[in-house]
Amino acid sequence: MNELDYKGFESTEIGNPEIQRVAPKVHVSTGDNKVVSSIEDVVKKTVKDGMTISFHHHFRNGDFVFNKVMRVIIDAGIQDLTLAPSSLTGVMNDMVIEAIKKGTITNITSSGMRGSLGDFVSHGGLKNPVIFRSHGNRARAIEHGDIKIDVAFLGVPNADRLGNANGMNGNAVFGSLGYALMDAQYANSVVLLTDNIVPYPNTPASIKQTQVDYVVEVDKVGDPEKIGSGATRFTKDPKELKIAETVNKVITNSPYFKNGFSFQTGTGGAALAVTRYLRQEMIDNKIKASFALGGITKPTTDLLEEGLVEKVMDVQDFDKGAADFMHTNPKQQEIDASWYADPDNKGAMVDQLDVVILSALEIDTKFNVNVMSGSDGVIRGAIGGHQDASTANLTIISAPLIRGRIATVVPDVTTVVTPGDSVDVLVTEYGIAINPKRDDLKKALSNIPGVPIYDISELQQMAEKRVGKPTPLQFTDRTVAMIEYRDGSIIDTIKQVKD
Amino acid sequence: MNELDYKGFESTEIGNPEIQRVAPKVHVSTGDNKVVSSIEDVVKKTVKDGMTISFHHHFRNGDFVFNKVMRVIIDAGIQDLTLAPSSLTGVMNDMVIEAIKKGTITNITSSGMRGSLGDFVSHGGLKNPVIFRSHGNRARAIEHGDIKIDVAFLGVPNADRLGNANGMNGNAVFGSLGYALMDAQYANSVVLLTDNIVPYPNTPASIKQTQVDYVVEVDKVGDPEKIGSGATRFTKDPKELKIAETVNKVITNSPYFKNGFSFQTGTGGAALAVTRYLRQEMIDNKIKASFALGGITKPTTDLLEEGLVEKVMDVQDFDKGAADFMHTNPKQQEIDASWYADPDNKGAMVDQLDVVILSALEIDTKFNVNVMSGSDGVIRGAIGGHQDASTANLTIISAPLIRGRIATVVPDVTTVVTPGDSVDVLVTEYGIAINPKRDDLKKALSNIPGVPIYDISELQQMAEKRVGKPTPLQFTDRTVAMIEYRDGSIIDTIKQVKD
Repeated sequence: MNELDYKGFESTEIGNPEIQRVAPKVHVSTGDNKVVSSIEDVVKKTVKDGMTISFHHHFRNGDFVFNKVMRVIIDAGIQDLTLAPSSLTGVMNDMVIEAIKKGTITNITSSGMRGSLGDFVSHGGLKNPVIFRSHGNRARAIEHGDIKIDVAFLGVPNADRLGNANGMNGNAVFGSLGYALMDAQYANSVVLLTDNIVPYPNTPASIKQTQVDYVVEVDKVGDPEKIGSGATRFTKDPKELKIAETVNKVITNSPYFKNGFSFQTGTGGAALAVTRYLRQEMIDNKIKASFALGGITKPTTDLLEEGLVEKVMDVQDFDKGAADFMHTNPKQQEIDASWYADPDNKGAMVDQLDVVILSALEIDTKFNVNVMSGSDGVIRGAIGGHQDASTANLTIISAPLIRGRIATVVPDVTTVVTPGDSVDVLVTEYGIAINPKRDDLKKALSNIPGVPIYDISELQQMAEKRVGKPTPLQFTDRTVAMIEYRDGSIIDTIKQVKD
Repeated sequence: MNELDYKGFESTEIGNPEIQRVAPKVHVSTGDNKVVSSIEDVVKKTVKDGMTISFHHHFRNGDFVFNKVMRVIIDAGIQDLTLAPSSLTGVMNDMVIEAIKKGTITNITSSGMRGSLGDFVSHGGLKNPVIFRSHGNRARAIEHGDIKIDVAFLGVPNADRLGNANGMNGNAVFGSLGYALMDAQYANSVVLLTDNIVPYPNTPASIKQTQVDYVVEVDKVGDPEKIGSGATRFTKDPKELKIAETVNKVITNSPYFKNGFSFQTGTGGAALAVTRYLRQEMIDNKIKASFALGGITKPTTDLLEEGLVEKVMDVQDFDKGAADFMHTNPKQQEIDASWYADPDNKGAMVDQLDVVILSALEIDTKFNVNVMSGSDGVIRGAIGGHQDASTANLTIISAPLIRGRIATVVPDVTTVVTPGDSVDVLVTEYGIAINPKRDDLKKALSNIPGVPIYDISELQQMAEKRVGKPTPLQFTDRTVAMIEYRDGSIIDTIKQVKD
């Protein structure tokens, strides 16, 4: 698809369109012959030139499934595939690059990419522009038919011979199957790969036998050590702690901090610090949250156990602790990516969200946020749920003013991912900036001890004073990636970097 | 639809067709304004002349929702609706008849009907023929678009303001929402009615906010006393006990009674007696079942608790005991009607079923079963899951040889609902008959003490000897109902009775 075929981004408002959803083709069977002995066999049965194939990224850097399957697909000489995973993690990079070089993959849509693959694409390595979509937008695109998945290859830590599966039991557990549930529901052919075939019928069945065509037993689906995001440690970095403390103050002084509020904190050392501070404030003020949303960690399920959070709405777990908790606690609800964040819905969780804390590679004086390209113009990030969760009542961007010799607060972001219109407060280690459109917040946040309010231009100038003005980046005219806004319009493009 | 438009029934084999499923239209919103103050308001917003509307029957004879909604629809003067509930229970009869007489309802598809409504339709009261579909066939028809539901009115014992709901908590609980999950997923507009709006977000969410357009708070959705099927008492009728004992012997002497077998016993005093006998045999022979399926009762969940059954696959609960157990036990899996029995699937539960015990109003010498029309030709039954579960490896029809002065085993059933091809054994109080196509079963069942094997014609003659030959029924040429087989073909029609 060319960028000219796209509608340009206009507004963060979705409105009330009427949408005709799509549905998959079903190959009818009694389900008795789904178990296939090898990946080679199942690829032969399912994948043809020109198809769209998908994977999930719940195993993160512990993923063994992607490389096993792509090895077979490349070796089979299949050409011209569109790769449409929920996201791409670092362990997949070498294989994707090889597949591109051999013509196996000619199109990619993903939440993001990093490392060698980001570098390869930024230097023009892929024939067609990558389309980056947020998690909610991927759900929307699948439900509209913008992404039509022919074959989904989904790794699971357990499955029975008919394909009933969940992410909660087994060796390589990751908890919620949130992103993969879209593929299971909408792909024409669904292939499960597991190292753990359990007696029929397997429950709870997050993925159901009615959705699955083939089950392949493999040696190991993932490395449990690398599935966790490693974000369970509490940060000791003074700058991160300062930011987390300020984020906490912004939340607790905002009008949203009251009984029944909801929040998404995400992962990373700073986010965990926010969760810890917030926990104390909730206890001190006798405030309970109605729900915590998003990528879930053990500190969040601890809040559920403590009764400080009524419900955990779980599209993804970042550690085994959170994953383990889910299958016996009906208050931790597995949600799919559509329920989490599809904007073309009858209400997604993000539409009900009070407070979200999000990160930024760059944020500019219009509050536009870049989480996709580095200061060198190279792709090194992922939209994730950034655009989606920014619809919260209070969207806080937490970011250091500078990183090393690079400014985070800039006159113009290299790549607009999340429009400034949906961002409310920037928190840095020096103080905060409030989006002028949120004048209502100024009063509530104006008298917090130790938290000065700046105009965002002042913060930008403070950053520039410290690190200087960078030389403008040099790009060619060739588009290597397009950034969709969550409604499917195009909000920015990424051009090939000049060598 | 006319019977001439239909493909005639050919085979119980479904084969491996490729099916394009359909998907609903979605009216996009953030979900913030779903709560509507009255049924009048929501009917005004949703229902137009000529539409197809639906309800579920999980409240059975304790249902208050159907009559409340239909009262408003009739009074609004809406005309020419197709009524497409999962089934119709006796408490709905008067209202349906009034709606037909006033032109509000001109088409009906249902699993069944009884009492005054069956009588009314059998005497030509409805303009167009009713289409009777099994639970699995209704799921199939919805997923194909043969039934296109414009508005589903679904009563639930709890819901939050965005429509997250389940059948497990509240006053009028009924457990699994199995049949209603089809409507929630496929209807263009979904209206929940509840007497219990709970804090957001409600979990577990069997019905999800992403599926629901409106939530209406009503006084009471149902009468808990009348939701249970009343089948929790153990029968003391000697004839029923004799049949149950024989059914048990047939099962335990069959090749299917081994570790990991599966069964569906259903409801009613005799079924409960079978469950009790079977329990003892399982203990004595150290045999565990892999799953119990279907309409679930407390005696079945007791087996789960005892560890005699590994999993309960639950499309419907017949008592509060079974309903209560589900939401804290991941081994009791809520399944929708498609997963239960849609033949056009990637494997439904019934395809994996070893043993099923089903009832009959009549069974003929070709083993065809009638569960729909009485010996007077009047509609007084429901297909339910009869055609669907008959795909089991061992399908047992349990029925008395005669009922009062009426033969159950007859030369030809009045109405063919389940084809003889899918029936294996008939169990009566006098003995059993084995379908000749199941010669393999004869050896296993030939030496059971006290269980004589008859040719089914012998049983028919025994019955005829006792009650005589009835005068042939008199029908007009007009078709008042069509019986679909589960694949959507037409297996029989019901004609208007002659007065």
